[in-house]
Amino acid sequence: MKILVETSARHIHVTQQDLETLFGPGAELSFKKALSQPGQFATNERLTLVGPKKSMPNVSILGPVRPATQVEISLTDARSLGLVAPVRESGDVEGSAPCKLVGPCGEVEVSQGVIAAKRHIHTTPEDAVKLGVKDKEVVSVKIDTPERSLIFGDVVVRVSPKFATAMHIDTDESNAAGCSGEVYGEIVR
Amino acid sequence: MKILVETSARHIHVTQQDLETLFGPGAELSFKKALSQPGQFATNERLTLVGPKKSMPNVSILGPVRPATQVEISLTDARSLGLVAPVRESGDVEGSAPCKLVGPCGEVEVSQGVIAAKRHIHTTPEDAVKLGVKDKEVVSVKIDTPERSLIFGDVVVRVSPKFATAMHIDTDESNAAGCSGEVYGEIVR
Repeated sequence: MKILVETSARHIHVTQQDLETLFGPGAELSFKKALSQPGQFATNERLTLVGPKKSMPNVSILGPVRPATQVEISLTDARSLGLVAPVRESGDVEGSAPCKLVGPCGEVEVSQGVIAAKRHIHTTPEDAVKLGVKDKEVVSVKIDTPERSLIFGDVVVRVSPKFATAMHIDTDESNAAGCSGEVYGEIVR
Repeated sequence: MKILVETSARHIHVTQQDLETLFGPGAELSFKKALSQPGQFATNERLTLVGPKKSMPNVSILGPVRPATQVEISLTDARSLGLVAPVRESGDVEGSAPCKLVGPCGEVEVSQGVIAAKRHIHTTPEDAVKLGVKDKEVVSVKIDTPERSLIFGDVVVRVSPKFATAMHIDTDESNAAGCSGEVYGEIVR
């Protein structure tokens, strides 16, 4: 069984409170496009991400709102921004990098929350059986491309009936593997 | 035997003619720092690299001058600049992307020459024997890091008595492998 490999561009998750600071009282995220994970969606809202060395305009917010504001960037982005972003699983932001977010109605100083996402596989309990993997297991995934084939180690598996089966990598990882178009990976032992 | 893995940031090689167009008649590259490959050096000269979508200032020139002007960028850079850079070995620029280079004294329209470097190993004939590899062989190299271990496939080997043994990857590849500090790789079969 092969796994769909999706590339996550830099993006931001926000709390309702930060959303209202940035976009005004009562602001809501507006649906633009469904993502592969059920319930998750791209929005029309954009923020400027400010680091010590540089600002990046037009960074997408993903919905729905979350219990903590989190910024996911590549390590290339981190260097440009002048931040040291740790490689972390989503939600594990303790002691991660700070940044400033600027929206049309206000700014938020994020004291921690900037991470480079640890590469991971979302999968359902049914597909986990087919793949022979368990929740929290760390596996390797082979990606065959015409010029930059590689095997990613340190891929963490997350199993939930709420997921759809897909592997997520960031733009640095996608480029390192020469991914373009629809790409599939294979778990190797 | 392990191989030193070096990360190449974006850089430019120029012809003497283009150097003089950019920096003025009689211009010479000034030595800043020796690189691992004998005779190759970082210079103090900087150019602005202009693509359809964006410009990047302060891009380093590496010396000495070469028979053809060549720009080596990451695929992250290519996307930012709005270019489609093919993955190529150095020197193989036929039909690669165009760009404009801007220096203090002039500009050069480069009709082709922008590439993303194919990952490669430089090695001496003596080390090639120790590594069990031949010139032009394509191998895989394992890199162990705390959070982003991986195995790079499609690594081309180049053997010459003029080389020092080192593997070169670009910044996307370096970030995908979580490289920092001095990193070594191991050829795997």
